[in-house]
Amino acid sequence: MRTTALMSTAAPRSLQQTVIERRELRPDDVDVRVTHCGVCHSDLHALASAGPDTGLVPGHEFVGEVVAVGSDVTSFAPGDAVAVGNIVDSCGTCTMCLRDQENFCVEFPTLTYAGRDRVDGSTTLGGYSGRYVVRDTFVYHRPTSLDPAGVAPLMCAGITVWEPLRTNGVREGTRLGVVGLGGLGHLAVRLGHALGAEVTVFTTSEGKATDALRLGASRVVVSTDADAMAAAAGSLDLVIDTVSAEHDLAPYLRVLDLDGTLCSLGYLGPIDIQTMDLLLGRKRLTSAGSGGRRWTQDLLDFCGTHGVTADVEVVPAADVDVALDRLARNDVRYRFVLDLADIDAELDAERDALHA
Amino acid sequence: MRTTALMSTAAPRSLQQTVIERRELRPDDVDVRVTHCGVCHSDLHALASAGPDTGLVPGHEFVGEVVAVGSDVTSFAPGDAVAVGNIVDSCGTCTMCLRDQENFCVEFPTLTYAGRDRVDGSTTLGGYSGRYVVRDTFVYHRPTSLDPAGVAPLMCAGITVWEPLRTNGVREGTRLGVVGLGGLGHLAVRLGHALGAEVTVFTTSEGKATDALRLGASRVVVSTDADAMAAAAGSLDLVIDTVSAEHDLAPYLRVLDLDGTLCSLGYLGPIDIQTMDLLLGRKRLTSAGSGGRRWTQDLLDFCGTHGVTADVEVVPAADVDVALDRLARNDVRYRFVLDLADIDAELDAERDALHA
Repeated sequence: MRTTALMSTAAPRSLQQTVIERRELRPDDVDVRVTHCGVCHSDLHALASAGPDTGLVPGHEFVGEVVAVGSDVTSFAPGDAVAVGNIVDSCGTCTMCLRDQENFCVEFPTLTYAGRDRVDGSTTLGGYSGRYVVRDTFVYHRPTSLDPAGVAPLMCAGITVWEPLRTNGVREGTRLGVVGLGGLGHLAVRLGHALGAEVTVFTTSEGKATDALRLGASRVVVSTDADAMAAAAGSLDLVIDTVSAEHDLAPYLRVLDLDGTLCSLGYLGPIDIQTMDLLLGRKRLTSAGSGGRRWTQDLLDFCGTHGVTADVEVVPAADVDVALDRLARNDVRYRFVLDLADIDAELDAERDALHA
Repeated sequence: MRTTALMSTAAPRSLQQTVIERRELRPDDVDVRVTHCGVCHSDLHALASAGPDTGLVPGHEFVGEVVAVGSDVTSFAPGDAVAVGNIVDSCGTCTMCLRDQENFCVEFPTLTYAGRDRVDGSTTLGGYSGRYVVRDTFVYHRPTSLDPAGVAPLMCAGITVWEPLRTNGVREGTRLGVVGLGGLGHLAVRLGHALGAEVTVFTTSEGKATDALRLGASRVVVSTDADAMAAAAGSLDLVIDTVSAEHDLAPYLRVLDLDGTLCSLGYLGPIDIQTMDLLLGRKRLTSAGSGGRRWTQDLLDFCGTHGVTADVEVVPAADVDVALDRLARNDVRYRFVLDLADIDAELDAERDALHA
């Protein structure tokens, strides 16, 4: 089936509306009409590293509705409100998959774009498009009570912070720190607050203090203020660090209390730390990435119950290049979401004409 | 009161029997006759960094008997079998001390040697001596059912591995790895086994396999064998790394299962790791150092119940230089312990003559 996608061109950060072919439904496939797709920092990285004419279609946090299902699909029916994240397949048989941690599949999970389909070996094309065909096990029911545009970022930014919040046992009274108030950080604050945690936000931008409090923080520490950082020493159980640039982790180990955990999520490069910063107070350094099926559905259910969505700025598909440029300058509060509802208008009109 | 101590000289790693003065008992002091003191790697480091004529007396894991107690002491009486570790005082009022984690006292705990006495400001002189005067709160009752020489190393090597074993919840069935089979490592194996863990030992010395199994390991992996390391991937809940030289931690993160913890104990320098080695499987990196009062008494009680002591080679006080040289070459299985029972023989004879 043909659909319109936003595909990379030779120009940096420029995407072109292009008609692509989606596979015919396999027995376990779901055909999703995409209405909204979040714009993630990973998309920028992927576009930057993609060569000219790679034919990259970004997008791995999207929502929409089921159009059709394969012959073996029983969990979804046409019209269902669904969401898809950054993993669309995994081996299903390794120790990680068997524990619903497909994100750590030992054969590496199939990514929603620029991944390799496990059946036909083709390169996956992402959610910046009108339709997406995906194996049923990686489609999630989304609460219809929530604004679909605000749900899309839950599928990558949201689950990335949710899995460590859950697996580190955040609950009523947990003293939670969040470093950085961007796409991931603002959801960590909101979700942590909804879980009952007392949330402290660390930011370099004093101007974000009001927003941090609005999102649910009870304390804001400007991380460049040495006195404020010293005053926060030993005060937290868990710190979720969402800063994607290389930075010193020691200050965030020092704000942890005995047996506290620093979870570094945003930065993927090499880490240098001093043993003493772990030793004194038995601090723990960890990371996490994406989420498995169990925690993803858990997140959507929780957000439905607690009315949690991302703060988004919805932009028309035609403005995707502007959104990417602004994201590169961190000029967004807190996530761009592409409105893709009409991207297939011409193709749909053609199809209607054919069937008329 | 005068006692004989083994004090540093200008020559490297050479100690001289020297008569030193111990303070008169304060109301909360305990006067301990030292019978055995373990020889710890830290002693080598301290001697190496001490300048000539520093008057350093090493020794921070020792056992003995109470000779006398201060007027306010109620927990100890003359004749009691006791043990002392590497901390002899702390502020007692900080958040760490109030949680029995004097090892992380925010004012820094007073070390058993080369520390600064909190009352008179003097430099503490260690347990390589006939007597030691110490505040009662840092004296521990030791089980008399255990060989005193084998108990001495529990007070530093033992508690260093015990606190992380306990706080990481090692129990029946825990899959525990121990890296390095030395003073700390052999106790981690024995204590882990006594707690019910399935113990895997990682060693570069194939020759230590038999010993590892004797100490309670059920599996030995030669860490230089890439195939054996690959086969161990994802198989452990907790790894206690006791290697004191700088080394790559990545292989020990990879043998951890989902949410597993690597506790680096032996090495105190800077650590370089890749975020991905933490991210994939949500691995945790931590450390620990020494132990608080709660876990120290817990260790001694546990060892009494389970008959656990260190494997020691007891050497006369006169041979301390030989022991230090052999330790520097790692030629010991697994801890030297100095026999100090007669080091004060001349002073005792003088005292007896005075009182005759």
